[in-house]
Amino acid sequence: MSSIAIIGFGVVGSGTVELFEKNKANIEKKIGRPVEIKYILDLKDFPDSEYNKKFTKNFDDIINDPDVEVVAELVGGTTFAYDYTKKLLSKGKSVVTSNKELVACHGAELLKIANENNANYLFEASVGGGIPIIRPLYKCLAGNAIESISGILNGTTNFILTKMIREQMDFETALRMAQELGYAEADPTADVEGEDACRKICILGSLAYGKHIYPEQVHRSGISRITLDDVEYAENAGYAIKLIGSVQAIGNRISAIVSPRFVSKKSLLSSVDDVYNAISVVGDGVGDVVFYGKGAGKLPTASAVVGDIIDALKHQERILAISWDDNHDSSYIVPYKSVETSMYVRAKAKDNDVDKQKGHLSDLFGKLIFIERNGRANDEIAFITPSLVESEIDEKLEVLSKSMSIESKIRML
Amino acid sequence: MSSIAIIGFGVVGSGTVELFEKNKANIEKKIGRPVEIKYILDLKDFPDSEYNKKFTKNFDDIINDPDVEVVAELVGGTTFAYDYTKKLLSKGKSVVTSNKELVACHGAELLKIANENNANYLFEASVGGGIPIIRPLYKCLAGNAIESISGILNGTTNFILTKMIREQMDFETALRMAQELGYAEADPTADVEGEDACRKICILGSLAYGKHIYPEQVHRSGISRITLDDVEYAENAGYAIKLIGSVQAIGNRISAIVSPRFVSKKSLLSSVDDVYNAISVVGDGVGDVVFYGKGAGKLPTASAVVGDIIDALKHQERILAISWDDNHDSSYIVPYKSVETSMYVRAKAKDNDVDKQKGHLSDLFGKLIFIERNGRANDEIAFITPSLVESEIDEKLEVLSKSMSIESKIRML
Repeated sequence: MSSIAIIGFGVVGSGTVELFEKNKANIEKKIGRPVEIKYILDLKDFPDSEYNKKFTKNFDDIINDPDVEVVAELVGGTTFAYDYTKKLLSKGKSVVTSNKELVACHGAELLKIANENNANYLFEASVGGGIPIIRPLYKCLAGNAIESISGILNGTTNFILTKMIREQMDFETALRMAQELGYAEADPTADVEGEDACRKICILGSLAYGKHIYPEQVHRSGISRITLDDVEYAENAGYAIKLIGSVQAIGNRISAIVSPRFVSKKSLLSSVDDVYNAISVVGDGVGDVVFYGKGAGKLPTASAVVGDIIDALKHQERILAISWDDNHDSSYIVPYKSVETSMYVRAKAKDNDVDKQKGHLSDLFGKLIFIERNGRANDEIAFITPSLVESEIDEKLEVLSKSMSIESKIRML
Repeated sequence: MSSIAIIGFGVVGSGTVELFEKNKANIEKKIGRPVEIKYILDLKDFPDSEYNKKFTKNFDDIINDPDVEVVAELVGGTTFAYDYTKKLLSKGKSVVTSNKELVACHGAELLKIANENNANYLFEASVGGGIPIIRPLYKCLAGNAIESISGILNGTTNFILTKMIREQMDFETALRMAQELGYAEADPTADVEGEDACRKICILGSLAYGKHIYPEQVHRSGISRITLDDVEYAENAGYAIKLIGSVQAIGNRISAIVSPRFVSKKSLLSSVDDVYNAISVVGDGVGDVVFYGKGAGKLPTASAVVGDIIDALKHQERILAISWDDNHDSSYIVPYKSVETSMYVRAKAKDNDVDKQKGHLSDLFGKLIFIERNGRANDEIAFITPSLVESEIDEKLEVLSKSMSIESKIRML
């Protein structure tokens, strides 16, 4: 008999218990021995739960019980979770988690502790909810040099953008709807400003390139300033606006950026709607592969947690051996202003003379793509720049700002 | 120093050597020790190859060399490949392969030999080329009861259907183009009649449900009888015609079918074009996840082979432990005529009186969806039946055949 413990009986924790109990017979067949959830740690009381007898408020029950082989840390955050995880791994107990913040902030350290103590630290659920991405990236694509990863990594913002694109709902209205449906929190900052997506791209980039990428090293912008005008211009030019977390190899360094992007309708990512996530990985052997599914939610996330529990139980010896180096070399990340990109720009001509400004723009940028929309104001111009280092685009827009006011800038993918 | 051997220096074999040598430094870092390709077995001569010194024509060189830990079997077929694989696994050497035919026909037996000899038999490359699907299905989704798998598993037929859909090219012309581009063989039967897709759905179904599914147990129909009229009716009704391999749990039994299907435009699968593959897996926890990428080709397939080589080298002890039971219980597979489906039907009214036949159809089927197209002949009717057991649909069509000739039947997904 193997024992596992669940720390945190919130949405993901209760989903994990539900899915595990539902498929227990099959799970035991896969592991090759009986297994039970022995403890559920939560500070709240659940007197009516059918798992009543398993509840504890005392972490020592779990860490001191030699029967407990694997612990699912599902509390989130970097306080208790960090402390518990370090202690458990140090004692040689494997930990599986959906805690993207903890992995993004302390992954290198925790993986080192795990490896030193023959334990596994697994976090398939931390990116893309139930979508298999960590193991495919680390195992199946191990023969590739990864050229880039671009993902729709946050379901809340994708829901809001989908409402803006498909139903011409403005940002504030779509955000309120997401809150009413429980997709967005009362304080939506972490989602809307890209913090959540940032943590996830840090994890994927750390895995793909073998060096820890910290959230504060990643340039990040959110979706709160996107207007329906931008959405319409994107549509007319053959694009959809999506919040994209991306990481890309540039020589021996990498670029990592979270920002809204114009995504071509020819890309599968453009048709990923609502709370779904999708991640595109480009490798030098495999080309472009895409992983798609529900990026959050009780049972989808539980699916990844239970998958990790099974894998950890099947491999008591340290054999999964995910690891990446720590990274305190600030030159490893290319500053985002030094990365090449094309840029969508919406601007207003101060003198109302759009044609003169178009000439001015073409002189500055060379070949530009101008975009139209129904009901365009007389003083409005929208265009897509050629691919240039971002600081160069900024310099040219600085020159322009004498005769035009820049209303919106969105990078192309 | 670990040694590996490559059997078969064709497209995939040469791609595997190329990708391995290109990313060797990184691969060795992942494995934690130096590794070399020691032998390449091929009956042909490659005097100009830079790997000249590695070539051998003698299988004994490989099987008798204790340095060789992992062998990539890339010859295909079930003659030499079957013999070599059994011998290698029996000697405790791990084998990785892209050979879908061998896995589909002898997987249960070969996995048993591997497990008995502490060796790994890995075949990520056998389904979906470079797309990670075997490991995600077996590992990441292990906590789910798999409800169904539906995939575009053959690039050649998807290329032909894409040309028919996007460019109104007829089947014969599209097939010739596929042959000219090297996507289809001179004898295209294995692709066009669904044999290749059938082998792949056998592998996925065996993995997902733990019992071997043999190709001859799977009902299979191909795409050679699909006309541009069918394509146009599909388009008008909001569908694309795709060749789909599918497997589905029905109680404790399964249904496995390869056939063209009407795929809703709302499904991601409908927008998978050209030689790309995509596989949708539905689990009771995760919901719907989709895996997308290049399903064939030199380097994409090599990507999966090299990923398996790395995994096998990292795990010398038998720990990957893929296995499924053999299955000689014919009742395990539900006969396809007993499976519920909706059906697209195109028919001609023998008496030219379409309206009378429509009434007749509605009496028989209840609520039908009739579809229109530009230039429909006066005697033509196209419709989608309600969801019924397929034998019931056939019975009703049998009644109809007195007054109508059935020109085309395509299942809905």
